[in-house]
Amino acid sequence: MSLDTPIIDDIGEEIFALAAKIYPFCRSITGNGVRQTLREVGAHIALDIHEVPTGTPVLDWTIPREWNIRDAYIKNERGEKVVDFNQSNLHVMSYSVPVQQRISLSELKQHLYTLPDQPDLIPYRTSYYAENWAFCMPHRQFETLRDETYEVLIDSSLTDGHLTYGEFLHKGETADEFLLSAHVCHPSLADDNCSGVALLTHLAKRISRLRTRYSYRFLFIPGTIGAITWLARNEDHLPRIKHGIVVSMVGDDGGPTYKKSRRGNTEIDRAMIHSMRHSGLSPTILDFFPYGYDERQYCSPGFNLPVGLFQRSKFGAIPQYHTSADNLEFIRPEYLSESYRLIAETANVVESNRIYCNTVPKGEPQLGKRGLYGAIGGDKDAAVANMAMLWILNLSDGMHSLLDIAERADLPFAVVQRTAELLREHELLKPLESF
Amino acid sequence: MSLDTPIIDDIGEEIFALAAKIYPFCRSITGNGVRQTLREVGAHIALDIHEVPTGTPVLDWTIPREWNIRDAYIKNERGEKVVDFNQSNLHVMSYSVPVQQRISLSELKQHLYTLPDQPDLIPYRTSYYAENWAFCMPHRQFETLRDETYEVLIDSSLTDGHLTYGEFLHKGETADEFLLSAHVCHPSLADDNCSGVALLTHLAKRISRLRTRYSYRFLFIPGTIGAITWLARNEDHLPRIKHGIVVSMVGDDGGPTYKKSRRGNTEIDRAMIHSMRHSGLSPTILDFFPYGYDERQYCSPGFNLPVGLFQRSKFGAIPQYHTSADNLEFIRPEYLSESYRLIAETANVVESNRIYCNTVPKGEPQLGKRGLYGAIGGDKDAAVANMAMLWILNLSDGMHSLLDIAERADLPFAVVQRTAELLREHELLKPLESF
Amino acid sequence: MSLDTPIIDDIGEEIFALAAKIYPFCRSITGNGVRQTLREVGAHIALDIHEVPTGTPVLDWTIPREWNIRDAYIKNERGEKVVDFNQSNLHVMSYSVPVQQRISLSELKQHLYTLPDQPDLIPYRTSYYAENWAFCMPHRQFETLRDETYEVLIDSSLTDGHLTYGEFLHKGETADEFLLSAHVCHPSLADDNCSGVALLTHLAKRISRLRTRYSYRFLFIPGTIGAITWLARNEDHLPRIKHGIVVSMVGDDGGPTYKKSRRGNTEIDRAMIHSMRHSGLSPTILDFFPYGYDERQYCSPGFNLPVGLFQRSKFGAIPQYHTSADNLEFIRPEYLSESYRLIAETANVVESNRIYCNTVPKGEPQLGKRGLYGAIGGDKDAAVANMAMLWILNLSDGMHSLLDIAERADLPFAVVQRTAELLREHELLKPLESF
Repeated sequence: MSLDTPIIDDIGEEIFALAAKIYPFCRSITGNGVRQTLREVGAHIALDIHEVPTGTPVLDWTIPREWNIRDAYIKNERGEKVVDFNQSNLHVMSYSVPVQQRISLSELKQHLYTLPDQPDLIPYRTSYYAENWAFCMPHRQFETLRDETYEVLIDSSLTDGHLTYGEFLHKGETADEFLLSAHVCHPSLADDNCSGVALLTHLAKRISRLRTRYSYRFLFIPGTIGAITWLARNEDHLPRIKHGIVVSMVGDDGGPTYKKSRRGNTEIDRAMIHSMRHSGLSPTILDFFPYGYDERQYCSPGFNLPVGLFQRSKFGAIPQYHTSADNLEFIRPEYLSESYRLIAETANVVESNRIYCNTVPKGEPQLGKRGLYGAIGGDKDAAVANMAMLWILNLSDGMHSLLDIAERADLPFAVVQRTAELLREHELLKPLESF
Repeated sequence: MSLDTPIIDDIGEEIFALAAKIYPFCRSITGNGVRQTLREVGAHIALDIHEVPTGTPVLDWTIPREWNIRDAYIKNERGEKVVDFNQSNLHVMSYSVPVQQRISLSELKQHLYTLPDQPDLIPYRTSYYAENWAFCMPHRQFETLRDETYEVLIDSSLTDGHLTYGEFLHKGETADEFLLSAHVCHPSLADDNCSGVALLTHLAKRISRLRTRYSYRFLFIPGTIGAITWLARNEDHLPRIKHGIVVSMVGDDGGPTYKKSRRGNTEIDRAMIHSMRHSGLSPTILDFFPYGYDERQYCSPGFNLPVGLFQRSKFGAIPQYHTSADNLEFIRPEYLSESYRLIAETANVVESNRIYCNTVPKGEPQLGKRGLYGAIGGDKDAAVANMAMLWILNLSDGMHSLLDIAERADLPFAVVQRTAELLREHELLKPLESF
Repeated sequence: MSLDTPIIDDIGEEIFALAAKIYPFCRSITGNGVRQTLREVGAHIALDIHEVPTGTPVLDWTIPREWNIRDAYIKNERGEKVVDFNQSNLHVMSYSVPVQQRISLSELKQHLYTLPDQPDLIPYRTSYYAENWAFCMPHRQFETLRDETYEVLIDSSLTDGHLTYGEFLHKGETADEFLLSAHVCHPSLADDNCSGVALLTHLAKRISRLRTRYSYRFLFIPGTIGAITWLARNEDHLPRIKHGIVVSMVGDDGGPTYKKSRRGNTEIDRAMIHSMRHSGLSPTILDFFPYGYDERQYCSPGFNLPVGLFQRSKFGAIPQYHTSADNLEFIRPEYLSESYRLIAETANVVESNRIYCNTVPKGEPQLGKRGLYGAIGGDKDAAVANMAMLWILNLSDGMHSLLDIAERADLPFAVVQRTAELLREHELLKPLESF
């Protein structure tokens, strides 16, 4: 198996194309935007769509009413749309209640959000659990609004309905699972998280064609309430999750960034960090903190799953974050491809990570008689070439995994794994479980 | 309870005034100077005075004879007092035996101490356990002594009597104790330790008016022999001591400095370090070493109590140490006040430190429906405002105390403690013992 | 006992003289060069010589045929010896099979080794386990070879015989052993390892005249196959080995370097590092890695002995390594003497390292009444002078060895050890086993 050999060469382009396709949809934590998005994902993989009715209790929460929107605008006295939902779905605060009225500028201002420090950008705002309505607009435009009467329309609905999420399971040789999770609740924000949804779709597509040791579960869910819903409905299932990664913002030119699981030294943490450190990039590794994406839910103390967060730029740390500048120009195929490769390599590490035992643990085995060693001693380069073999033989005492050895020897996991295969063919290694 | 809200605003001035009042007394490890000092302390708090007879065995030691002094001088041939005890009690080596005789300069020099590198200062010298007498004087003056005959008088007495120490106990809700200890054996040295005696007196006064969880025991004792005496007489009592701080040199402009207990990672060590790190100052943290003040006795291997040392400048590390330059100009109300605040805050930390359990450990609780969360999402500042809540909920798994959480979250303890109270009011936290 | 007081003052000269005497012999992993070398070692100590027959199985290996060589040369058409074994035994690849033939330059070049980057040096090459023959020569000379026919002679033999190694045991008070091991298989390479053989010989000579706690076992063995042979023949014996050091390259001006045992924090590791850190030199400390000298075998996972590697320059890291530049000018008596002292001091540390218990653990003992303390307090230097006593008393709680205390107090072990003796004489310390 080699997860990091993409199904196609231009995997970055493919991921970008899907991200671009779903970018215009007006997603929220419920509603048709999510359904539209999952339909596009489902065009690539056999996605299960779940619909959970409004009012269903989920852990400490309750599924809210479903929100949909058809149109919205602010018209001035001359009938000009000074703000138009059709131009950008960020213009309307998510979960805005329906409104149609004529109001003064001063009243209108109670319902306007801008970013004075980034006067050309539209901010992204939500009000899921408090009934309200608002428009978001560039501060520069806001400053030109005249003191007149405006016609305001938000043609939305907030009604009993469903919360929708998508799930894809690839069955591996074992029931142990690798969880990959992306949020699908943000409207037109390309990096956060059209990029993550598109990347996981193509990774799932690739994995679905491979024989794997682990089963791989992909979740395309609304942030927070979606993760809580899935956790509530799958509580008995959680012990099977051995590794997990939340992905978001995987297409920009920053990072890469990895935030460790709450446990902090799990195999997924070590595998992800190893892949990033040997990537030639300069990764940022963060200890767990209880703010961010759905790792907050997976790592809540009652679950404490081994789930980290992979990103390129760290959320909140860049000016484009949660603004209209997080658009399709902000993400690039080359970065999507690199993110794909890092996650696939990490999956390769945990797929291949094993504890072996040296079958000749007393003294070094004679590699030469097995054709494993340069027969001419004294060559200054021989040491380097043979180091992987010597490290594996020396540390394969039933207590060190291949990843432990790769870390200790400061060698790429792939080198250690290939060398271990060679030693195993020569019966110098046996898996721990064979003893 | 809020120990760090001083009983009066100008606490530094009050501490300074008491330090100044006791500064002139000629203290030693026994004698009337100690009694005079404890009388002044007793004017503020209900101090118990203990008198332990000469000859009493205490651990490996024996209470020595009591030393008192009335007068001392060196007169030259013209009858001029070239050294006069009434000018400074540092002029006579502590525990000097009585002497009255006429001697040559060369004989006299056998009994003179000076500081050639600090020629204007009088050194502080003692000879508690070897019978001897000596004068201490500025080196510059020493160099002007003519080769003539001198009349030497030390009107002291070294007789069977008592060792005297003071003790004050504030009873809290539990019998678990917080020990605070200051030495009262140094003569006119303002920072070392009139400052410490005065600070503890006012802290005791403040605490005596509060309801506290811990009981607070204050010791005003002669260095070394006093601590050994108290330990010998209270050995059965020691398991009650959960936290302790020795204070000395708390009024100068250096530090602050904290020397950890021998155990090195006790709650008092962590609480004191936390308070200092969040003070806006630049504290120096030292690992335990077996030289210093009475932490040497409290932390001897047979007791190994959780007791650290708080100072501003580190003893021995400043030129004023154990010289006449350690006078009332060397200490300042503002530094005394700051030291008071740091110790009081530390007491607050251990008073309030608890382990709580999150009552909604699976997923995050919905803070919004309890009015605990900004209802409008997407605000970049919301994360900051809610971090304390999220950290406490995430780490309150029955294994992390509030101090653990404050350290991990890098938040001031007071913020964590107040936030925990709020969450407890909303029944999102329960103390560990309630489960 | 004081191992670091050499038997003679000019120990470095003595070691050098022995290294110089054995330098010319043509050693390999078997053969008369090894026997000649061991005879010189045996002139100083009562060495046991072991002969193990060809074909004997040893762990995963088999004793190879014995190799000896009498002469070798390359003659040009004018009968001139362009390469002559009698000039340097490095000219012939070790274990070259016999050959006598006339060949063209192009054929000859298949059997020539040079160092293009170090054109004046002869490289050192071996081919123990693959039948072959070759000459080694300076690249500058290689470039002058004319295209003509050459007469090639290697008058060697490769026949059933023996592998030879030497062993010396000094019996101490206990059967617990300190292992010291040097390889004797390199031909004329002065630092690697005539220096190590000569140093261990003189250390053994010194130790043989002392009463020691540990027994000391010295091995003079061919690299790899010799260590494997000794391990195979002494497997039941290995649990007695409590400490061990492999020595090689101990006469050059680099380092010193210490590579830790595989376990990484054994007493020998800590003792060696302590001695080096307090030597006034700038030691390099390396974590274990599975390439190098015979520590590879001693630290194989099935044995995992507490054996480190002491060197001056790190092998492979200097241009002289495995070339004709590793000659008698490359090693110097002063460096040999320094290496001797570091190893002897390390042996002293483990000889004297004990856990003591303070007999007066409650409070400090009164040192003054025992004459152990400066009676005049207040002297700023008194603290320094008494620190060793205070550290030992404070940490001698049955859990800290003298080496632990020396490390914690940052004091030389010898100071701590002498001070512990003094405290023991005053019955303030008892060995742990006395309780």
